[in-house]
Amino acid sequence: MDDKILNEIGFTPIDEEIIPEDDEIIELIDAITADEDELEEADVDLTDMLLTTEQEELNDVIESDFAIDVAIAMEEFTDEELLAFYERLDNEHAAQILEQMDEDLQQRFVALLDYPAILAMFRYMSNDDIADIIGEMPVNRRKTILRRLKSREDVESLLLYPDDTAGGIMTTEYIALSDKLTIEKALQKIKEIAPKTEIIDTIFVLNGKKELIGTADLRDILVEENTTTLAEIMYDNVVTVTPDMDQEEVSHIASKYDLTAVPVVNRKGALLGIITVDDIIDVLFEEQTEDILKMGGASAEESIDSTIIESVKFRLPWLMVNLCTAFLASFTLSLFEDTISQVVALSATMTIIANMGGNAGNQTMAIVLRSITLGEINLKDDWMKVVKPILAGIINGAIIGSIAGVIVAMKYGNMYLGVITVLAMILNNIVAGVFGFFVPLVLKALHVDPALASSIFLTAATDVLGFFAFLSLANLFLPLLM
Amino acid sequence: MDDKILNEIGFTPIDEEIIPEDDEIIELIDAITADEDELEEADVDLTDMLLTTEQEELNDVIESDFAIDVAIAMEEFTDEELLAFYERLDNEHAAQILEQMDEDLQQRFVALLDYPAILAMFRYMSNDDIADIIGEMPVNRRKTILRRLKSREDVESLLLYPDDTAGGIMTTEYIALSDKLTIEKALQKIKEIAPKTEIIDTIFVLNGKKELIGTADLRDILVEENTTTLAEIMYDNVVTVTPDMDQEEVSHIASKYDLTAVPVVNRKGALLGIITVDDIIDVLFEEQTEDILKMGGASAEESIDSTIIESVKFRLPWLMVNLCTAFLASFTLSLFEDTISQVVALSATMTIIANMGGNAGNQTMAIVLRSITLGEINLKDDWMKVVKPILAGIINGAIIGSIAGVIVAMKYGNMYLGVITVLAMILNNIVAGVFGFFVPLVLKALHVDPALASSIFLTAATDVLGFFAFLSLANLFLPLLM
Repeated sequence: MDDKILNEIGFTPIDEEIIPEDDEIIELIDAITADEDELEEADVDLTDMLLTTEQEELNDVIESDFAIDVAIAMEEFTDEELLAFYERLDNEHAAQILEQMDEDLQQRFVALLDYPAILAMFRYMSNDDIADIIGEMPVNRRKTILRRLKSREDVESLLLYPDDTAGGIMTTEYIALSDKLTIEKALQKIKEIAPKTEIIDTIFVLNGKKELIGTADLRDILVEENTTTLAEIMYDNVVTVTPDMDQEEVSHIASKYDLTAVPVVNRKGALLGIITVDDIIDVLFEEQTEDILKMGGASAEESIDSTIIESVKFRLPWLMVNLCTAFLASFTLSLFEDTISQVVALSATMTIIANMGGNAGNQTMAIVLRSITLGEINLKDDWMKVVKPILAGIINGAIIGSIAGVIVAMKYGNMYLGVITVLAMILNNIVAGVFGFFVPLVLKALHVDPALASSIFLTAATDVLGFFAFLSLANLFLPLLM
Repeated sequence: MDDKILNEIGFTPIDEEIIPEDDEIIELIDAITADEDELEEADVDLTDMLLTTEQEELNDVIESDFAIDVAIAMEEFTDEELLAFYERLDNEHAAQILEQMDEDLQQRFVALLDYPAILAMFRYMSNDDIADIIGEMPVNRRKTILRRLKSREDVESLLLYPDDTAGGIMTTEYIALSDKLTIEKALQKIKEIAPKTEIIDTIFVLNGKKELIGTADLRDILVEENTTTLAEIMYDNVVTVTPDMDQEEVSHIASKYDLTAVPVVNRKGALLGIITVDDIIDVLFEEQTEDILKMGGASAEESIDSTIIESVKFRLPWLMVNLCTAFLASFTLSLFEDTISQVVALSATMTIIANMGGNAGNQTMAIVLRSITLGEINLKDDWMKVVKPILAGIINGAIIGSIAGVIVAMKYGNMYLGVITVLAMILNNIVAGVFGFFVPLVLKALHVDPALASSIFLTAATDVLGFFAFLSLANLFLPLLM
């Protein structure tokens, strides 16, 4: 964007660089927000700095939005360093950082502290974050802390729901007001509650029975007449979810309706809590990276930082499943060992058929997996969707198969080998289309995550049926191939 | 959740069902929010209803959050039905629905309308949405509309940036106030601007040079003394992005720092726009589903609704790439045709080695792809990360290989065949580990999306090197195998 345009849209170009007022803080923040490339260096710097920098500067950094960076840097700390750093923090700052830590570090950190220290930090934290931490603690510790907790009932109610459901990610800190309130009274209430709540731009409106009957927008409240009631300005069609809804589904609803807070209600319409948009984003982020892992047949628990033993342990189960399907393909081949021993060229060609089928199937499967994620799949809607992968398989198989067939025929000087390559490629592309289409749908119908190692099952199908189609054809035309 | 707990946390159980006050609206909304299973029926109902229902009810539905559902139902409309439905809408409602349409429908819809009709809807839309629609129009139409547009300069400035950058998804409608303003004056300004802006809970604070120097939280403004200035209550460490930053990176930053609005600034620190959280969510959603497609070697442009011709066209390029890599593997095999013709059991066994290598590599690759997405990869940080996939490959290869080796040895009554199976499996698992680790990193270094069909290149490596390892070993020990 050049200066001319800047001027046109009303900005004055500024030539001076911003001059830091406090060099040391800038340096500390620089270390925190360093580029990925500088990360190693920055990590070391930050780890040192957090333990040695002046108290005042430390507070400045933590008070800013960079508590997450401090939490990430702390992952390198030993237990002794964690404690030493904790000693330097007041409870409010410690709470801000604790909220941002990943689950492992949170548990390692609170395990080092006694009950009063933990409870002192909890005073500055929201109930859903407290519930997340307590939920992972050993049972005894959990019970003791719950007994001493002020917001015990709220936290206990949050602990009732599994982590990955709407109930598990909701918070009980929101603004809910009666529909009878006037704007003036509502604004007064909002000012009182605001410091204790997570979001303020959406006000939830309840009727006399505590049922959620609408939402009011803070911007409307700010501009309306003082005597208007909330009932008059609220939107009365509210999208709600139940506490047992899967968090992924919640994130899709929030995304579809552009919600910044999703109310969670029980079957009777009573408001139990709300899910805030930062948690929605976390869910989407988590699901995105989990899908990548599942499609690869890797475990969501493994990361690039896992130990070798952990990696081996996480991966072996799927490799064992895969070994079974690989032997299935191998068994199919061994049925045709006689044929192969007579025309050894089959061996080099059949691998092309199997490989191409696997990849064509993966393409169809990716399209279907995305449609499932987007909630677009509806077979009743249009049975042509089932016919399409078959037709696309025939066309792609014919095109790719013809190219492969010509090359194979020339290489081995046998036209018939080329012809059965084309035919087998078409057959295996149909198999790929059908299995690529149905494997994720069947897994979904069985209530298994459709992304979960779908490709292992798909490859099994395209290998077994691809080998079978090609070698059966070869067997049929054996005299012509020799 | 049983009634007892409800009582404990302060809710009164309610036995009556909510009684609809207006049956017809409820019916229409039911049709809109029907379950997936009921979708076909609901679609038909909704399509009819939108064209035939009473005007007043129609407005009620659109005014609620369900404009997106109306937009989805409209995808089934013919051009005539689109126009007939448009005639039933006032400009404000038409604008709300237009905003929610997908890109294809948006363009189909505006192409049916004349300039005054389009401009009338644009009056109710935010500049970023207008820019998105105008940006896809034919050049002539775009120029004519821009000339007649009130907010021409803002929209033109948004059109400068590619769709998938921070500049392309930002909006110019936000609240930015001077740091010198008192709370009283600020609140007055906020009330004036609020109806025209997208978010109100974060106020952006500028200095005299229009540089972004902080953000203020509306909840603080609501509770502070009237004479305090914004400079006193603002947070002065603001996370900002530049307009050319990739939208995926922006979404990661918003996710990491729990931002509900990301300010976009130029190199001089002047505020150009903000990115709102609903756009962040859309980006995450888009990237999630795109990654699934890319990993499968499918095109982001293909969907379950694409025609067969489109599907074939989108898929062929990757299938051609794949055909080349498949021939590479086939060529490797044909080098050993002599060996295979002497021991045909090799043919059925080598497919296990290749297949297992491919899947082990996919596991490593999935972990690396996730780390790249999360921004965790940093090779300089720890060279052990490079050694680990090799070691994990040796261990997994030894375990899986031993099982496979015993089965193969027993099946063919030849111990040596079992031994070379174990050795080849270990070698190919090392190949899988190394290629699974480096293929996505190399693609990333080449500025190609690392998810893009990584598995085709990986499978090529594990096939070629797996076959080569196994058949070379077989060749070496040939006398023992016969």
